Amino acid sequence: MTSNPTWVLKRFPTGMLSPDDFGLEDRDAPVAQRGELLVRTLWLSVDPYMRGRLSPAKNYAAGHKIGEMMVGGGVGEVVVSESPLFQPGDIIQADDFGWQPLTTVSAKTALRLDPAAAPVQTSLGCLGMPGLSAYFSLLHVGRPKQGETVLIPAASGALGQIAGQIARIRGLDPVAIAGSDAKLDWCKSIGYRTGINHRTTGDLTGAIARACPSGVDVFLDNTAGPIHDAALLNLNTFGRIVVVGTVARADRFDQPDIGPRFLRRILVTRARIEGFLLDDFEAQYGEARQQLTEWYQQGLLETREDVAEGIEAAPLALIRMLKGENFGKQLVRV
Amino acid sequence: MTSNPTWVLKRFPTGMLSPDDFGLEDRDAPVAQRGELLVRTLWLSVDPYMRGRLSPAKNYAAGHKIGEMMVGGGVGEVVVSESPLFQPGDIIQADDFGWQPLTTVSAKTALRLDPAAAPVQTSLGCLGMPGLSAYFSLLHVGRPKQGETVLIPAASGALGQIAGQIARIRGLDPVAIAGSDAKLDWCKSIGYRTGINHRTTGDLTGAIARACPSGVDVFLDNTAGPIHDAALLNLNTFGRIVVVGTVARADRFDQPDIGPRFLRRILVTRARIEGFLLDDFEAQYGEARQQLTEWYQQGLLETREDVAEGIEAAPLALIRMLKGENFGKQLVRV
Repeated sequence: MTSNPTWVLKRFPTGMLSPDDFGLEDRDAPVAQRGELLVRTLWLSVDPYMRGRLSPAKNYAAGHKIGEMMVGGGVGEVVVSESPLFQPGDIIQADDFGWQPLTTVSAKTALRLDPAAAPVQTSLGCLGMPGLSAYFSLLHVGRPKQGETVLIPAASGALGQIAGQIARIRGLDPVAIAGSDAKLDWCKSIGYRTGINHRTTGDLTGAIARACPSGVDVFLDNTAGPIHDAALLNLNTFGRIVVVGTVARADRFDQPDIGPRFLRRILVTRARIEGFLLDDFEAQYGEARQQLTEWYQQGLLETREDVAEGIEAAPLALIRMLKGENFGKQLVRV
Repeated sequence: MTSNPTWVLKRFPTGMLSPDDFGLEDRDAPVAQRGELLVRTLWLSVDPYMRGRLSPAKNYAAGHKIGEMMVGGGVGEVVVSESPLFQPGDIIQADDFGWQPLTTVSAKTALRLDPAAAPVQTSLGCLGMPGLSAYFSLLHVGRPKQGETVLIPAASGALGQIAGQIARIRGLDPVAIAGSDAKLDWCKSIGYRTGINHRTTGDLTGAIARACPSGVDVFLDNTAGPIHDAALLNLNTFGRIVVVGTVARADRFDQPDIGPRFLRRILVTRARIEGFLLDDFEAQYGEARQQLTEWYQQGLLETREDVAEGIEAAPLALIRMLKGENFGKQLVRV
């Protein structure tokens, strides 16, 4: 049997994740059952939604159990196929990769990739879950009109970098919020009109007002916290807030979020605040993926990856992404 | 000249309104200018939106100034018409009645009433602003589907009593929240399935869970405050909160509303929270008024009024309505 170092959840994090919440176990390679594929892991994805699963609280994603293997999106090469849909040598993307070099995934939800069409790890970024999330949250929930200002935090992250470029392609006015000047410079180079460094700006509300002189029409809220508050105070009449994530609260995940509420302002502005979950758009994945691939092949979607090396790096990659220390889509190359 | 006791704003209220915020001045009867009507006031309406106007803060309604006459919805008989649209003796409804027995209104926005069709004061209630607000906020913003549970606070109030009955007519499942058992009994008699007395219920969240065993699909939020919080915790996936008013905060109107925020829950449930302002539906008033009048004449809309007598009573009528001490649509008979 092959040695197969495997990350498991040792305990539920309290506040921000710690490396000690995870344990690396020396397991045997798993065996593919009927309908499964044994896959050699090439890439693992770490994503904000994972914070929600690492909690005993009810969530939209099924929760991890203590002692259970960490699971997430990945790309790999099929070694053994127990499904007529795939053959050894196929490169596939799936959302149920174990955090281990050899893992089994369900053939039913796996996606065969064409390495000639785009680098295979884009299926975890601009052509995968973050790209689809950007596409549907901005266009289908935010429903922006020509020329409207779209404010996007974590703007160089996996979702933000694609959302900003879709906004540019669609004739909108994208404004970035990010945690460093280097990130903002890159955001501007890919099409954001301007940006705000939320770590060095004292008065976030004022900074948004200056960066968005016509106000904010759509706020793609993937952070919650103080950025949400400042954006809401700049929201135009009939403005929209699409609640995509709450990563700013990753360190206080299970604590109540106490702060100013804005019902009066929502009333006065007739704002719309709406939660977004990608799964709801599954029926339309095909057309969105086709559109994103087209834009990518036309050179309209630039991407930036932040790659951690080796299976050992997976928990730290997740933690730095939740802290906003990554620059670009955070990946692990196994 | 006729003596014409007239209410003016003496100072901006801090917190809950006080009778001392208003002064009764002995003015002369006004004179109608071109395009205006001199009207003998029959009924005045006091409504939650008035709290917002009595503030120096920016709001959706133009603010009152200190020393200025109080203004609101009313019904009256035309005495002098400086408009070809109306004649002396016409009974009209308008939104710019001064709080005085003889007042002038703009002919352009006045509405001629047919006293044979319905009691004229219904133009301030079920066939007027509160009825239209109930109609559009529930049906056009809440967009309920057959059989869905609709939770309505201030359920015996001007808006709530109509919203509950529209919900019943449309095959929905209306649940009342009100401040007394007598109000709840009446709510059930007009079509609410059940109700919750928020003044005697310790655990509002649990009470809503018991009253709404299938969860809350649409919450017609005309209160904000603790009722909003408890409703949100019972909101179904894809639930909708229509923000119609914030009357529970009438006593802390200009203070920040600090408390639990629910972005994570909005994300998980894909809830939609949307502000409502009646003016946005002006183009559709005609059809809604026709539908409401039809239901009223078919006996499908029961109404209950709480009538204060005499122009002197106007400020106290407004205050008791803001405190929830009224039982039914609060009116002043002049």
